[in-house]
Amino acid sequence: MTLLSSFKTTCLSLALIGVAGVGLADPLPSWQGASKDRIIEFVEAVSDVGGADYVTPADRIAVFDNDGTLWAEQPVYFQLFFALDRVAKIGKEDPSKLTSDVLKAAAAGDMDGVLAGGKEGLLEILALSHANQSLNEFSADVAAWVSGAKHPTTGLGYDEMTYQPMVELLRYLRDEEFKTYIVSGGGIDFMRVFAEDVYSIPPEQTIGSSLTSSYEVVNGVPTIIKNDALFFNDDKGGKPVAINHHIGKRPIMAVGNSDGDFEMLEYTTAGEGARLGVYIHHTDAEREWAYDREGHIGVLNRGLDEAEDRGWVLVDIKNEWTRIFTGEAE
Amino acid sequence: MTLLSSFKTTCLSLALIGVAGVGLADPLPSWQGASKDRIIEFVEAVSDVGGADYVTPADRIAVFDNDGTLWAEQPVYFQLFFALDRVAKIGKEDPSKLTSDVLKAAAAGDMDGVLAGGKEGLLEILALSHANQSLNEFSADVAAWVSGAKHPTTGLGYDEMTYQPMVELLRYLRDEEFKTYIVSGGGIDFMRVFAEDVYSIPPEQTIGSSLTSSYEVVNGVPTIIKNDALFFNDDKGGKPVAINHHIGKRPIMAVGNSDGDFEMLEYTTAGEGARLGVYIHHTDAEREWAYDREGHIGVLNRGLDEAEDRGWVLVDIKNEWTRIFTGEAE
Repeated sequence: MTLLSSFKTTCLSLALIGVAGVGLADPLPSWQGASKDRIIEFVEAVSDVGGADYVTPADRIAVFDNDGTLWAEQPVYFQLFFALDRVAKIGKEDPSKLTSDVLKAAAAGDMDGVLAGGKEGLLEILALSHANQSLNEFSADVAAWVSGAKHPTTGLGYDEMTYQPMVELLRYLRDEEFKTYIVSGGGIDFMRVFAEDVYSIPPEQTIGSSLTSSYEVVNGVPTIIKNDALFFNDDKGGKPVAINHHIGKRPIMAVGNSDGDFEMLEYTTAGEGARLGVYIHHTDAEREWAYDREGHIGVLNRGLDEAEDRGWVLVDIKNEWTRIFTGEAE
Repeated sequence: MTLLSSFKTTCLSLALIGVAGVGLADPLPSWQGASKDRIIEFVEAVSDVGGADYVTPADRIAVFDNDGTLWAEQPVYFQLFFALDRVAKIGKEDPSKLTSDVLKAAAAGDMDGVLAGGKEGLLEILALSHANQSLNEFSADVAAWVSGAKHPTTGLGYDEMTYQPMVELLRYLRDEEFKTYIVSGGGIDFMRVFAEDVYSIPPEQTIGSSLTSSYEVVNGVPTIIKNDALFFNDDKGGKPVAINHHIGKRPIMAVGNSDGDFEMLEYTTAGEGARLGVYIHHTDAEREWAYDREGHIGVLNRGLDEAEDRGWVLVDIKNEWTRIFTGEAE
C-alpha cells in the first residue's frame, strides 16, 4: 500500500465511522415506544430528498403549545404564579394598589380567593402585574422572577420544569432543518424572556396572547408601553389565526396537549402532503401530573376522542417518556 | 519549483484573486454618492468581527417600509388600485353589491368620487375588496391582479415598479447576514402574495396592517376568513409596536420615506451601538415622482426637518440612484 492509498483508506474509514456514528446516535434519548417511532418516521420522510413526502426546508415549520406541552402547567399556569408574586411585591411596596378583594387575595397567595374572583378577577390581576409599565420593566421583572422563583410542589425553578423529551424533540427538528415556533395561550412578552434560553426559540418565533401596547417617547427615550386591554387571545381558533398572522404559512407539524390546541392541530394536519399532529397526554401522576377530561387547566376531551381517527400521535407520558423535567438529575 | 510548491502557489494565487474579486464587486451598482458610502460603511462596521461596532448576525435586523421605499406609491398606493379593480370586478358580476356612491365611483374608476368619500368611503372599499372571504380566495385575487395589472402612467406591471437600488440593498444586507423585514402600512396579506417573489422576503418577515380574521371549518375545510374590522394599523407609532409584536427585538437599521416611518426610524436608532436610519427622498420628477411636504401620499415633513440632526441618511433619488425601476430596461 502506498502512502497515498493508505491516506485515502484512512479518510474513507473515518468517513464511514462518521456516517455510522450519525446513524447510531438516538435523536430522542428520553423517548421510547410507538410515538417516538412515528415522530422519527415523519421527520425522516419529509427530509428524504427525492422521497414522496419530501418537504423543502423553508416549509418545515413546526408549532408547539407551551403550557403543558413544553413545560408543566400544574397546579396552575406558571404565568399566574408570576402574576401573584408580582401583585404581592407591588402590594408590599404600596398597599393602596390592592384595590379589591381579588387583588388582596392574590397578594396573600390565597388561591381560593383568586379563583373566587372569576375571569374578571384574573383580568384585574393581569392588569396590575403585566400592564401600565414599559416592556423593558416588565421583561426585567419576568427575568428576575424566572431566575429566582421555585415551584410550590417540586421545588424546582420554573425554567427547570421544561420537559426534557420536548427539548430533545425541538433540537432534533432543528437539526433536520425545521423552524420551531411556540404558539401558546401564554403571554408573548412573558415567554420571550426565557424561550431563547430554555428552548433555543428566538423572540420572532415565539407567538402568544398579548395586551395592546403603544409607542411613547418617555423623557426622551423611545419606549414600548404595555397597556391593560387584551389585544389577542392566542387560544383555540385564535391559534391558526396567529399562525397565519405571524408566520403566513401553514405548519407541517403541530404539538399540543389540550383542547385549546385542537384547532391548531386540525389546521396544520389539513394541509396537503405529509403532516403530523401530536398530543401530549398527561398520564403520569407519579413523576408529574395525570389529567385530561376534567379540571381548570389543560382539559383534553375532543382531542382525546378524535386523535386516533384523525391519525394524530397521542403521547403517553407515563410509558413513552423515560425522563420528565430538564431540571431533574438524570 | 517542485510540483507541490507550484500547486501551493496556484492555490494561494486563486485565493488572492478570490478575495480581490469580492472586494471589487460593487454590492450597490445602482447607487452613487454619499448615501451609498454611509450605508456601506455601516454594514462593514457591524460585520467586522472584533471591530468596535460589531453586531452578532442574530441581531442584524433591518426593517423596510414598502410603499414609496421598496416600490413606488404614486399617484395613489398600489393597493388602492387593486381595491378599485376588485370593486369593479365585483360590481360587474353583481351590481347590487355597489350599495353606495363611493362604491359606484370605485367601480367606475372615478378617483375624485372615491376621494370625496373620505376615510369612511375608503373603509367601505376596503371591506368589499378585502374582507368577508377566505384568505385563499383573497390571495388568489391579489396574485392574478399583480400578474396582469398595469400602472396607469408608466405602463409597467406593479411588481416591475419595485426600486432596483432597494432590491440591491436588500440583497447586500442578506449577503452580510442581515435579516430583512418589511414593516409597512400596507396590508400584510396583500404584500405576502408577492414579497417573496419580488424582494426575497418570506411571509414571516412581512409585517403590515391587517383586518381581523377568524378560523372556521367551511364544508369540512379548515379556513382562515378575513373579516371587515381593522385589527392593526401599522403606521407611525404602530410600526415600533408591530416590530416588537412580530420580531421582539429592536432592529439596527430602518429605512422609510415618509413621516409614517418616523417612529420606526426613531425607535431603531435609539438603541445602543451602531444604528442606521435611512430616508428615501423622492426628488426625481422626471424618472419617477418628486414629492415631500405636501399631498396625500408619502408626506415627509418632520423627517426632512430632523434627519440631519438625528444623523439619518437622506437619499436623494435624483442624484444618488442611477436606475429606478426593476422593470425598466437597463
